[in-house]
Amino acid sequence: MAFVLGDIRELVTNAPTRPDLLGVVSDAAVVVQGGNVEWVGPEEDLPARFRGLRKVDAGGRAVLPGFVDAHTHCVFAGDRADEFARRLRGESYEEILAAGGGIMSTVAATRGATGMELFNAATARLDRMLQGGTTTVEIKSGYGLDIATERRTLEVIRALDERHPVDTVPTFLGAHVVPPEFRDDRDGYVELIEVGMLPVCAPLARYCDVFCDDGAFTVDEARRVLEAGRRYGLKPRLHVEQLGHSGGAALAAEVGAVSADHLDHVTEEEAIRLRDAGTIAVLLPAVALSMRTPQPPGRMLWDLGVPVAIATDCNPGTSYTESMSLVVALAALEMGLTPEEAIWSATRGGALALELPDRGWVVPGAPADLVVLDAPSSVHIPYRPGTNLVGAVLKRGAFVVDRLNLQR
Amino acid sequence: MAFVLGDIRELVTNAPTRPDLLGVVSDAAVVVQGGNVEWVGPEEDLPARFRGLRKVDAGGRAVLPGFVDAHTHCVFAGDRADEFARRLRGESYEEILAAGGGIMSTVAATRGATGMELFNAATARLDRMLQGGTTTVEIKSGYGLDIATERRTLEVIRALDERHPVDTVPTFLGAHVVPPEFRDDRDGYVELIEVGMLPVCAPLARYCDVFCDDGAFTVDEARRVLEAGRRYGLKPRLHVEQLGHSGGAALAAEVGAVSADHLDHVTEEEAIRLRDAGTIAVLLPAVALSMRTPQPPGRMLWDLGVPVAIATDCNPGTSYTESMSLVVALAALEMGLTPEEAIWSATRGGALALELPDRGWVVPGAPADLVVLDAPSSVHIPYRPGTNLVGAVLKRGAFVVDRLNLQR
Repeated sequence: MAFVLGDIRELVTNAPTRPDLLGVVSDAAVVVQGGNVEWVGPEEDLPARFRGLRKVDAGGRAVLPGFVDAHTHCVFAGDRADEFARRLRGESYEEILAAGGGIMSTVAATRGATGMELFNAATARLDRMLQGGTTTVEIKSGYGLDIATERRTLEVIRALDERHPVDTVPTFLGAHVVPPEFRDDRDGYVELIEVGMLPVCAPLARYCDVFCDDGAFTVDEARRVLEAGRRYGLKPRLHVEQLGHSGGAALAAEVGAVSADHLDHVTEEEAIRLRDAGTIAVLLPAVALSMRTPQPPGRMLWDLGVPVAIATDCNPGTSYTESMSLVVALAALEMGLTPEEAIWSATRGGALALELPDRGWVVPGAPADLVVLDAPSSVHIPYRPGTNLVGAVLKRGAFVVDRLNLQR
Repeated sequence: MAFVLGDIRELVTNAPTRPDLLGVVSDAAVVVQGGNVEWVGPEEDLPARFRGLRKVDAGGRAVLPGFVDAHTHCVFAGDRADEFARRLRGESYEEILAAGGGIMSTVAATRGATGMELFNAATARLDRMLQGGTTTVEIKSGYGLDIATERRTLEVIRALDERHPVDTVPTFLGAHVVPPEFRDDRDGYVELIEVGMLPVCAPLARYCDVFCDDGAFTVDEARRVLEAGRRYGLKPRLHVEQLGHSGGAALAAEVGAVSADHLDHVTEEEAIRLRDAGTIAVLLPAVALSMRTPQPPGRMLWDLGVPVAIATDCNPGTSYTESMSLVVALAALEMGLTPEEAIWSATRGGALALELPDRGWVVPGAPADLVVLDAPSSVHIPYRPGTNLVGAVLKRGAFVVDRLNLQR
């Protein structure tokens, strides 16, 4: 099963060598054995013991780690294309809500869907993600907002992990919004999360997330949910500072959240707190595109030393995309990262945001999750937006996408 | 060879019915015969004489006219990824020029390429365009800037038209920039265009275009080139008001140009002149993305009644994309058109900009150039950016892309 992937014009290892953030090796080869990377280096330095292995020729193309998409909501039913069109025609949020739009329409559709329907719809999305080079994806619950549907969503995420080549990381997001049936009893909903949802959902999740923002959950409510999650063994992550400046970033630093996501309205002082807490900033540039809002301050966060991940936020309301290539392009063209920083944030940054330190780079011992671009350099991803340049994808050393017919 | 394409959830005909710009027919069928559309309407109204025909089932998806990409420079050699990366890292234009970047690096590479090399590189681009739903594309010369290479480029465009399913419309753009060897003799270069290039290039072209802008050609030079082109039977189109406000839009109205392209700095008064001259505005939203400049005023032009087309501007310097879906998404999300206006501009608008009145719509007698989206509505194109939703493409009634396996 071992083989050499050779004739790589540019290999992005993400094993950084100053000043080269991406740790690029030119004219490189990678030895893959037992699903893992066994050796990495210039092809001319390939040790003699590997020279008899089967050779797969990358044809002078670029190879990079598979994308790690660290923030998605890609298990849901229905779509909100009508709401999207109304918004772009200038209708107000109130008119859209009156027409049945908004997150509650997705909650209603998801509650009404069977596990199999959710599984099939999400499989199609994971298929597109894989075709686009994503090899690991975080998926949140949060369109159930009742015990049964939150649990069912997490069961679907687990089934996807078992049956689809893309690895999934499950996050419990019962605290996405307060559902209408608890509109006048917010405390009652938080209590339902604590005593009703967490006992049955936590065994299927790795993280507990809260949408802590204007119109969602307050800082105090979020703290309470995250503390309850921790009692069930779930580490915290947080949606913060997207719609307004409500103190969520400070909470993320206070509780040592693994990640703080969105951050459109974060201040420099809060950024420093996040950095000092070891929290990763997960930025979502495709949301700004779809919502026609300013990009989050990626440049400021990067320059202050906060580790940055970028992700799709794949969801039917505010960012319906599966494409990490689009996210990389937007991060470089509209959010102010350099192409290299954007590539790093979409691979290594995503892995760190999911506490998967063996992912998102190409070093001996790492799983061989690799993308072969049909281009000579990873710069082509933002340089050529709108084109899926992913020519082949290896997941744990197996070709799961091979449009280039490299295995012939 | 005749067949019925049926079970179409949403058919965009572009045969407008107020207030429906796109002339949408729900639950529609299209009869295709001899490469052309024979009948269009609600499937339940299908006339008896067509009911025995072979049925191709669109599976409840949306169908729209193939995209007409009315402005590209997609015959070129080399790429400028390094220049792109330098620009995004903050280097100045002067530093980039000093490092060998800018349009002259593409001119040098194109002059050094054989016709076959240019043909092969452009074929790969047309393949990607076709996969993305483009069925007709305008292509300009202009990376030769000498007689032999301008002629060779137009020969390649003709060969592409003969050998590739995508139809090409050839435009002579000898007046793209003044090449360095004429830096001190601009008049000499214009004369070379008039007496050297046009006699050998005009027989291979349909239009004469000039880049009339700051740093390119003046209004007087542009007028002279366009007049010469007209003597050789080429109608005028113009690149104007992209880099500055230099009077090109007024010239376009004055000479009755078929199209005025870019228009970033056009004024309302000039827009009215263009409208009254019957000139189409060809807008290029992917240029603004790649160059990180404001979008052209698409909303203003549309509201003043100027017919709008949107196009990729596919070129290696300022907009290296083949994706009309990305252009539609940007037009709606960043340039201010509604989703419906963006779809119209990418199909019917493009056809009008190329004086191909039988393209860009789905009416009896039109060529059956059709896209089957893997989605129930054309709104999904801007709603789901970064994903190629094109599931099948028919060119003159033949399935040239069929990822959905509709013909099984």
